[in-house]
Amino acid sequence: MIPHSATLAVNEKINARRAAGRPVLHLGFGEAGLPVLPAVADALTAAAAENGYGPVAGSQRAREAAAGYLTRRDLPTDPGQIVFAPGSKPLLYAVLTALPGDVVLPVPSWVSYAAQAQLAGKRVIGVPVPVQSGGVPDPDLLEPALREARASGADPRVLVVTLPDNPTGTCGSADLVHRVCELADRHGLTILSDEIYRDLTFDPARHVSPARFLPERTVVTGGPSKSMALGGWRIGFARIADAGLRQDVTGIAGAVWSSLAAPMQAAAAHVLDEPQEVRDHLGASRRLHAAVLRATHEIFTAAGARCRAPEAGFYLYPDLEPLGLAEKTGVELSGRLLDEHDIGVLAGEHFGDDPAALRFRVATSLLYGSTVDERWEALRSADPVRLPWIAASLDQLRTALAAL
Amino acid sequence: MIPHSATLAVNEKINARRAAGRPVLHLGFGEAGLPVLPAVADALTAAAAENGYGPVAGSQRAREAAAGYLTRRDLPTDPGQIVFAPGSKPLLYAVLTALPGDVVLPVPSWVSYAAQAQLAGKRVIGVPVPVQSGGVPDPDLLEPALREARASGADPRVLVVTLPDNPTGTCGSADLVHRVCELADRHGLTILSDEIYRDLTFDPARHVSPARFLPERTVVTGGPSKSMALGGWRIGFARIADAGLRQDVTGIAGAVWSSLAAPMQAAAAHVLDEPQEVRDHLGASRRLHAAVLRATHEIFTAAGARCRAPEAGFYLYPDLEPLGLAEKTGVELSGRLLDEHDIGVLAGEHFGDDPAALRFRVATSLLYGSTVDERWEALRSADPVRLPWIAASLDQLRTALAAL
Repeated sequence: MIPHSATLAVNEKINARRAAGRPVLHLGFGEAGLPVLPAVADALTAAAAENGYGPVAGSQRAREAAAGYLTRRDLPTDPGQIVFAPGSKPLLYAVLTALPGDVVLPVPSWVSYAAQAQLAGKRVIGVPVPVQSGGVPDPDLLEPALREARASGADPRVLVVTLPDNPTGTCGSADLVHRVCELADRHGLTILSDEIYRDLTFDPARHVSPARFLPERTVVTGGPSKSMALGGWRIGFARIADAGLRQDVTGIAGAVWSSLAAPMQAAAAHVLDEPQEVRDHLGASRRLHAAVLRATHEIFTAAGARCRAPEAGFYLYPDLEPLGLAEKTGVELSGRLLDEHDIGVLAGEHFGDDPAALRFRVATSLLYGSTVDERWEALRSADPVRLPWIAASLDQLRTALAAL
Repeated sequence: MIPHSATLAVNEKINARRAAGRPVLHLGFGEAGLPVLPAVADALTAAAAENGYGPVAGSQRAREAAAGYLTRRDLPTDPGQIVFAPGSKPLLYAVLTALPGDVVLPVPSWVSYAAQAQLAGKRVIGVPVPVQSGGVPDPDLLEPALREARASGADPRVLVVTLPDNPTGTCGSADLVHRVCELADRHGLTILSDEIYRDLTFDPARHVSPARFLPERTVVTGGPSKSMALGGWRIGFARIADAGLRQDVTGIAGAVWSSLAAPMQAAAAHVLDEPQEVRDHLGASRRLHAAVLRATHEIFTAAGARCRAPEAGFYLYPDLEPLGLAEKTGVELSGRLLDEHDIGVLAGEHFGDDPAALRFRVATSLLYGSTVDERWEALRSADPVRLPWIAASLDQLRTALAAL
């Protein structure tokens, strides 16, 4: 079945209003909102003459850089285990397509997993996340959900986790990840661990990959789209320890997209080598995301919303139910927020959540400025939430929530 | 079912022998073998700051350039009909996945169509190409093949054509294309016309797209991978006139790969605008491909092979059956050519042809030089087949065929 993106339609509506001059606060889109580091642009430029078809999985140089990057993060990796692609999204799709059986997803979770499962002809078994953090299913609910799914004819074989999480901006604890890994092992599930936000964990020690516990049974995907604000460059990689699965994924890659563009592989290798300027830029980005996300979290909780404290990335997932509003669905309330208060957010329903829940994904990364200069200034600021354009956006949000 | 590339394995074997110091003549790989035009590299560099997620189908700028490119080729096109992707391959896959029913392929045809059909869970109905040219099924065989396919439970709904053709290096005539279009229309087939070699038609007037006869029912794919030697940059586009199909393809694109990288879209727009330096480079490339391909054709026919005269691109598809050799399959003979004569070619079986046929795809584009300087010299030469490195390669081929 062919998926069609509902969130895209919402974002198009937000963009259309902004284009028409409405002062819409764009909290709907998961773009990192920061400029390209000049040294990374230089790496792309330096590789512009590379026009040959390289290996499907990527050049030896790029695969070594990715293996080094993961190995430095306590995940010993051989370059031969790495597959690059134009984004981590095609790799998630290839893994979901290559693996037999149905897919277990946390609820809520990123919109594309369910769309890919649908395209691959798989059933989705949704399991709610725990109260403390998103991105992994609640271990107490996972076994009953698997049992129920099997009883209804499904064959759950893959578990997708998001560490750190989109949409909740949290990071499952080591204990939680460990418990889920034990259950996955016992039930024969392969874990697909989407770690695209990994380097944006505010306390890097907080992040623990399931590959630490189940290295052979876990596929890890990552890339610089969020950490280095290179979403539009479409660079991703996967660490696939299982040789048979890796062969299937490269088979699909060879048939569908061939390889990541050679100049992009060179740029990726530069980033994944982590020279000092990359580490500095990443550190500054992480501090900026944390400052604005925490300020936004305070505004939501001060307004009476329930919301997990942010630990990574640039998303919050507030629940406005305690505000006692009249709306019966999240989509309805997000419509009012946009129409009456110029606030653009995505309803939890798009992330697989209960349509009746008044929960939303709030992305703060487009608040850093409307020009490249403003964004650089935000990156360099010791107190970015006091910059006039960011402070004004936060005020707009505060006022809108008070007026609900 | 997961496809695994057999041609990739052959090419890896060829490359391994070359790496080990064997003087293997690499006629196995479909890379254009020419350098990046500096103005195009500059266009990529100039767009390195573009890091935002743009529209799935591509930027307005890039879509306008592609629409202009097609419109100048007598195929009036609206920018809204264009979808960009990281290569035309993902677009072929998305179209094959989005359209219902099974797939009719010319025999022989490019390896990836069958791999994609397999991945999309479709049956392949192979129809031999006529004696005069490849890339389109023989009209006299198409109707009986459709009848037979339906009788055996298949549901043929898509016809893939390659204009100009890989692997035969020929270009179906206007009359042939017209007859096939009439049959497709009568039988309710959508035509998927892969025109990636279009600008390498030696006599440009020779190329006629099925979209000229069936504009609404034909999807055209293209890109600069072959014409501008940008295969490793992974740039492709499709013209999809049917709004419903286009929506399905962008739905799949959004779920699987998001979009073509923004800097690559800018480079594509520059190429598709066809400024003078691009037209000059393309003209020089076309002349070089034609000269070397024609010289190679003469060598094969002088040795007694049957072979269609080349009309486009950089491939030949000689039949060595008249040489009266002992080998019983193409794969067997290609093995002897590599093992005993250091000639690397791909057997027709990989292109869906009869395994017993002694037919091969011969790619001449890696003969232009082993350095960037040699390739530029080949491009600028008035008589490239006399350049020492090209002449030596052609001699090696002549000697090998004589020794068979």
